[in-house]
Amino acid sequence: MTRYQHLACLLSDRIEQGLYRSGERLPSVRTLSLEHGVSISTVQQAYHLLEEKQLIVPQPRSGYFVATRKSTPPVPGMTRPAQRPVEITQWESVLELLSSRMDSDVLQLGSGIPDLTQPTLKPLWKIQSRMAQKQDAGLLNYDSLVGVSALREQVARLAIDSGCQLSADDIVATTGCHEALSISIRAVCDPGDIIAVESPTFHGTMQTLRGFGIRAIEIPTDSVTGMSLEALELAFEQWPIKAVVVVPNCNNPLGFIMPESRKRALLALAQRFDAAIIEDDVYGELAWEYPRPITIKSLDMDGRVLLCSSFSKTLAPGLRVGWVAPGRYRDRVLHMKYISTGSTATQPQHAVAEFVRQGHYGPHIRRMRQVYQRNYDIFSCWVRHYFPCGICVSRPQGGFLMWIELPEAFDAVRLNTELRTLKIQVAVGSLFSASGKYRNCLRLNYGLPINEHTEQAIAQLGAAVEQAMLACNAETLHATSLTN
Amino acid sequence: MTRYQHLACLLSDRIEQGLYRSGERLPSVRTLSLEHGVSISTVQQAYHLLEEKQLIVPQPRSGYFVATRKSTPPVPGMTRPAQRPVEITQWESVLELLSSRMDSDVLQLGSGIPDLTQPTLKPLWKIQSRMAQKQDAGLLNYDSLVGVSALREQVARLAIDSGCQLSADDIVATTGCHEALSISIRAVCDPGDIIAVESPTFHGTMQTLRGFGIRAIEIPTDSVTGMSLEALELAFEQWPIKAVVVVPNCNNPLGFIMPESRKRALLALAQRFDAAIIEDDVYGELAWEYPRPITIKSLDMDGRVLLCSSFSKTLAPGLRVGWVAPGRYRDRVLHMKYISTGSTATQPQHAVAEFVRQGHYGPHIRRMRQVYQRNYDIFSCWVRHYFPCGICVSRPQGGFLMWIELPEAFDAVRLNTELRTLKIQVAVGSLFSASGKYRNCLRLNYGLPINEHTEQAIAQLGAAVEQAMLACNAETLHATSLTN
Repeated sequence: MTRYQHLACLLSDRIEQGLYRSGERLPSVRTLSLEHGVSISTVQQAYHLLEEKQLIVPQPRSGYFVATRKSTPPVPGMTRPAQRPVEITQWESVLELLSSRMDSDVLQLGSGIPDLTQPTLKPLWKIQSRMAQKQDAGLLNYDSLVGVSALREQVARLAIDSGCQLSADDIVATTGCHEALSISIRAVCDPGDIIAVESPTFHGTMQTLRGFGIRAIEIPTDSVTGMSLEALELAFEQWPIKAVVVVPNCNNPLGFIMPESRKRALLALAQRFDAAIIEDDVYGELAWEYPRPITIKSLDMDGRVLLCSSFSKTLAPGLRVGWVAPGRYRDRVLHMKYISTGSTATQPQHAVAEFVRQGHYGPHIRRMRQVYQRNYDIFSCWVRHYFPCGICVSRPQGGFLMWIELPEAFDAVRLNTELRTLKIQVAVGSLFSASGKYRNCLRLNYGLPINEHTEQAIAQLGAAVEQAMLACNAETLHATSLTN
Repeated sequence: MTRYQHLACLLSDRIEQGLYRSGERLPSVRTLSLEHGVSISTVQQAYHLLEEKQLIVPQPRSGYFVATRKSTPPVPGMTRPAQRPVEITQWESVLELLSSRMDSDVLQLGSGIPDLTQPTLKPLWKIQSRMAQKQDAGLLNYDSLVGVSALREQVARLAIDSGCQLSADDIVATTGCHEALSISIRAVCDPGDIIAVESPTFHGTMQTLRGFGIRAIEIPTDSVTGMSLEALELAFEQWPIKAVVVVPNCNNPLGFIMPESRKRALLALAQRFDAAIIEDDVYGELAWEYPRPITIKSLDMDGRVLLCSSFSKTLAPGLRVGWVAPGRYRDRVLHMKYISTGSTATQPQHAVAEFVRQGHYGPHIRRMRQVYQRNYDIFSCWVRHYFPCGICVSRPQGGFLMWIELPEAFDAVRLNTELRTLKIQVAVGSLFSASGKYRNCLRLNYGLPINEHTEQAIAQLGAAVEQAMLACNAETLHATSLTN
């Protein structure tokens, strides 16, 4: 993006945010040039661009005024999944997404990988190097089934920020949040049972349900406030739901933070229908807001919430260090942990514990929040600029994932196949539905480096989407004419 | 053990092995003193000890002669488990064993932990230190779902020694052999299915069956030749057995290596009844014999064998680096791997791959075989010396596990509780049965350091066993007198 495009983007953001209202006079070219340290001609180019986009209108001898603007894409509305428990499909698509992960030529716009390039990660290497030099045989040995105690102590300490009063004994270390979710699901459900999930929801959770023969009832979910509690209540009344899996903080894929009142209401519902809540907080630490949002676990008085998380999104996924606070399901969770992997790799647990203990975690998280928030501003600018009209885009409140909804008839699976030649890969929406809905949606990772290569990819993606939308409209027209 | 006790032990070994036959004259005191570089009085003390044990008889002016000796304990006979599929119990005992693992004051005679103190492990530290210094962000990232390709290449190369022709693509890396077994079991079975297992067998496998709602049919197993194929055939005819789980090489806990002809016969049976074989080879590299014994997988032509292993017993369990060669079940295994832990920790996989690639693995394994074989000689000497008569002891052909069978009425669970005050812990036999059989058996780890502390523990254990056996006999007598 050039300088003038950036400025145009910034101005359109301000218009969107209501800082400049419809009909209001915009700052003069000279004022803006001074304010932003750019040349007069850059400002003029920016204004021209906004004029072309019909966001502003020139008034001879008076400057520029805010017009009825090309608005920021709206957020996606409440989703409408199937109203009955279904068996999960889509494994082949998940496998395809995972397989392309290893192709370094392909830009992984669809991945859930955090930015691993920040200097605040450096102490982690130092700690690991020192550990190797010490040659402590204990690091080569199995540690406790519940995990390294130094790690569990630090996890308990960090959990205070999310409102939880946990002790090290309340925590079981796992091989990533993936294992935490998997053993939690198996601890509270048997094959044939029904679990309620947000729709869309993380494909890993969904595939776990499939693997254990558990059916999912997908609950309509709003991209701003989260799971519809009204729909959940109806589902509870109609089906014997054993547990609810939710990602209430920086939801994957929608990015919302569930308001506290709704968290309370969800817990009350679970109590009323005596269901467990499996709370996936893996992106929770990456919320923009400070202090970070509370977990449902922090409100839990009767141990029915199993809080699952990891250091995969905040530090590094390759460490596979996760954890679960299983509440009253501890015994079953321990058994499931034992049969799943025996115990968790020892060294990575010690490395993470030491990283947190030495005080590197706070500064790192603060930096990552800033990085992702800045990235989001730029990415959403790019999406607005390069994508066609008629799309909805989520407004994440943390994390690094963005959800784009295209018109109903759009086929993102086909698009993703076409994108292969461009060496771009997105996560298609159908991965996030039990029954393959949301084929018209995409999930993008804005944690990727902000550079020309990424911008070019978004531009190419936007163009491909535009082309596919045109083709799709033509097909619809054709189909309509055939029917008539 | 003092010098003279050692010599006595050595001589009794030779008597046992038939090197000195019954009635044969033993070497003179002077000859032995020269041969072993010990004093005349040491030899005399040794001969006195053997005389006391009635192993040798003095003939005035002629020296010592081999007497009708206190023989080496016999090996346990064929086991006799329940003849029907059962649901698995014993989780509480397993948990107790695992929990005591972290108490460094307790001598872990019951653990499955290898010797981690040998200098041939040192290059592993060096490799890890260098990896940390290089700060390659790739090591912090997820790797492929199937595992790091450098690791899979080395695993495929090592598998040649067990007769397997595998390529890197045939292998899926896992979080230890534990996960390999777990995902293999889930890949070939559904809840309610039946799996045949050796009896006794590894408690981890058994608990996995329990966790997934699979029933076990325990097959009688001989401590020298392995699972009774005759009994297995009968079981196949009677029950719809989906798979057989076996540890044919350096069996856990019995230590046998199944003869090759029986491996072939087992595979033929599985083919005839169209069952899968889940082969746990985690101790296979530690066989005394050279070249190492083949796996059943090496004979498998139709991909029905899922070969599971890891570097936990050969290198270090804390790395949690294992693998499975799933044959024709690859797709299901991959799905189960995904829902179990997502992917395996990246750095440990690279470290192991590099350790093998640099050529450190061969020398390390050769050393560990020697260490364990020497340890076994000394341990079995101690057991013979300190344990009462009337016991059976397995003759492991590799690995570091020894199985001791005490008289039928003996209660090892009660013994283990009493041992707590002595800070000793054994693995009680009932852990290795689906239904809690083998309460009269113990599993010992002779991979522990050979020193006074360990010897003292074996002496204390032997004394405790003797006392318990006496008490047990008294109780039986009492019970009999009450009945009469």
